[in-house]
Amino acid sequence: MLHAIELCAVAVCAISGVLEAGRKEIDLLGVIVIALVAALGGGTLRDLLLGAPVFWIANQTYLYAAVIAGIAAFFAARIVHLPLDLFVVPDAAGLALFAVLGTQKALTLGAPWLAASLMGVITGVFGGVLRDVLCNERPLIFTGELYATAAWAGSLLLVLLAYLGVDPSWTSLAAITFIFAVRVTALRWKIGLPRFSSKVK
Amino acid sequence: MLHAIELCAVAVCAISGVLEAGRKEIDLLGVIVIALVAALGGGTLRDLLLGAPVFWIANQTYLYAAVIAGIAAFFAARIVHLPLDLFVVPDAAGLALFAVLGTQKALTLGAPWLAASLMGVITGVFGGVLRDVLCNERPLIFTGELYATAAWAGSLLLVLLAYLGVDPSWTSLAAITFIFAVRVTALRWKIGLPRFSSKVK
Amino acid sequence: MLHAIELCAVAVCAISGVLEAGRKEIDLLGVIVIALVAALGGGTLRDLLLGAPVFWIANQTYLYAAVIAGIAAFFAARIVHLPLDLFVVPDAAGLALFAVLGTQKALTLGAPWLAASLMGVITGVFGGVLRDVLCNERPLIFTGELYATAAWAGSLLLVLLAYLGVDPSWTSLAAITFIFAVRVTALRWKIGLPRFSSKVK
Repeated sequence: MLHAIELCAVAVCAISGVLEAGRKEIDLLGVIVIALVAALGGGTLRDLLLGAPVFWIANQTYLYAAVIAGIAAFFAARIVHLPLDLFVVPDAAGLALFAVLGTQKALTLGAPWLAASLMGVITGVFGGVLRDVLCNERPLIFTGELYATAAWAGSLLLVLLAYLGVDPSWTSLAAITFIFAVRVTALRWKIGLPRFSSKVK
Repeated sequence: MLHAIELCAVAVCAISGVLEAGRKEIDLLGVIVIALVAALGGGTLRDLLLGAPVFWIANQTYLYAAVIAGIAAFFAARIVHLPLDLFVVPDAAGLALFAVLGTQKALTLGAPWLAASLMGVITGVFGGVLRDVLCNERPLIFTGELYATAAWAGSLLLVLLAYLGVDPSWTSLAAITFIFAVRVTALRWKIGLPRFSSKVK
Repeated sequence: MLHAIELCAVAVCAISGVLEAGRKEIDLLGVIVIALVAALGGGTLRDLLLGAPVFWIANQTYLYAAVIAGIAAFFAARIVHLPLDLFVVPDAAGLALFAVLGTQKALTLGAPWLAASLMGVITGVFGGVLRDVLCNERPLIFTGELYATAAWAGSLLLVLLAYLGVDPSWTSLAAITFIFAVRVTALRWKIGLPRFSSKVK
């Protein structure tokens, strides 16, 4: 069940990569590369930092999901109009799930609390950052509604509940719901952190 | 013999970095950095993902080759006009060789077939991607003639032949020739994958 | 004592990230991310390349230092004018210290001399490169006064003195002083390496 949701999240992130790449003139393989990077980038960096085997080399089902979703989205986008908004809700679900899975993996491997919560953030958002850098755009996480913030708050909530000894299933469910709800609420009412109205010249 | 070709490929990729950097105003050390990144970036990412010791730390002959080739190209480019076209053929050879070496290393270390073929693509093209990102240009692999595609097709060919039990030497030779031929043919007749003529707004 | 200086260097690099981010419109969490990346990026890449446990996961005091310094600088920059020049001297100290620590760690883990000196350069400058790429600017190390050059020369000096059997404390002190002095001198008299006045079209 969890594995199935995880594969969906990988596929959704791959599609987000295709949609972003679609605003540039990029060929089919470039699109697949960006789909893979968007879908697998966060978990890959997490595994490298934790010194764990990279998850999509150990089990390449994730690769299948990302490649198939990316190719399907590529051809779908040539036929019908795919509004970016369509993917906002599953993308929020992917963010929530990846962040929670990342934090749990880090805790399991013995990372301390603040580092573990950052692993959650990295797993949730790094794929999108790489996608934006490859497409030569300013990373979305730095400009819009609560995104990395939601992932971080939820990861810290997970760490706190785990520390208090709450049952892992409830902890995960609470943190996933929290991140998803914060992200969707922030999108709906355009809530963001205070911007840097800088005095730096 | 193989080691000698590999060192040549490292040197050629280092020179490609210097030529790219030469279109910007970058100083000598920046040029060496970009040469190193272009020459060693692909193999480094492969080794990190596979959990293997990084090849140029284990054997720094590769460092010597990249640094010497980079410095030589830097000074040569101040004296004579170096056309970018000059390096297209050895660059195609480097792509072919790196992709095949990367796929073989991944298979040897037990990676599954699709992941192993992607290791070949990464080894072949990632140095160039990093070079372009550092020079703040859109990565070439996303825009031009068959490049990563050639590397991926050849890596998949290698995986297939290895699966069929063909002798490793013949397998390598076939895959290297295939990638080189596809790349040169694509350059000569400007063959590319279909572009993304997007319906995404 | 060394640990205290190292924490100061982390904090100073975090502040440099905040100041750079402040020239863009970035929110509070984006600022913290850039502060973390600027402060920890170099040492993280060093540890990944060397196959060592990542230092800020093993000991998250570094995380505390970077987060606290980043948040403090964010709010300080909203209240008072923070000139970028203010941080040039501690930044030079951070560069010197990180480069020496990186080289020493690489030598301790058995890296050969040229690779070890590059680990020093990477530890000293990679955080700043990542910071610039995330902010979508051309990396500073490629354009200005001696920076990576100073770090590399000092790292090579350290390798040489260690090879000659000089006492480690004196070796470190000499290399730190050397890098700091070269950097500050280069800034004061605007000394840089020869630029690439390219014949490449």
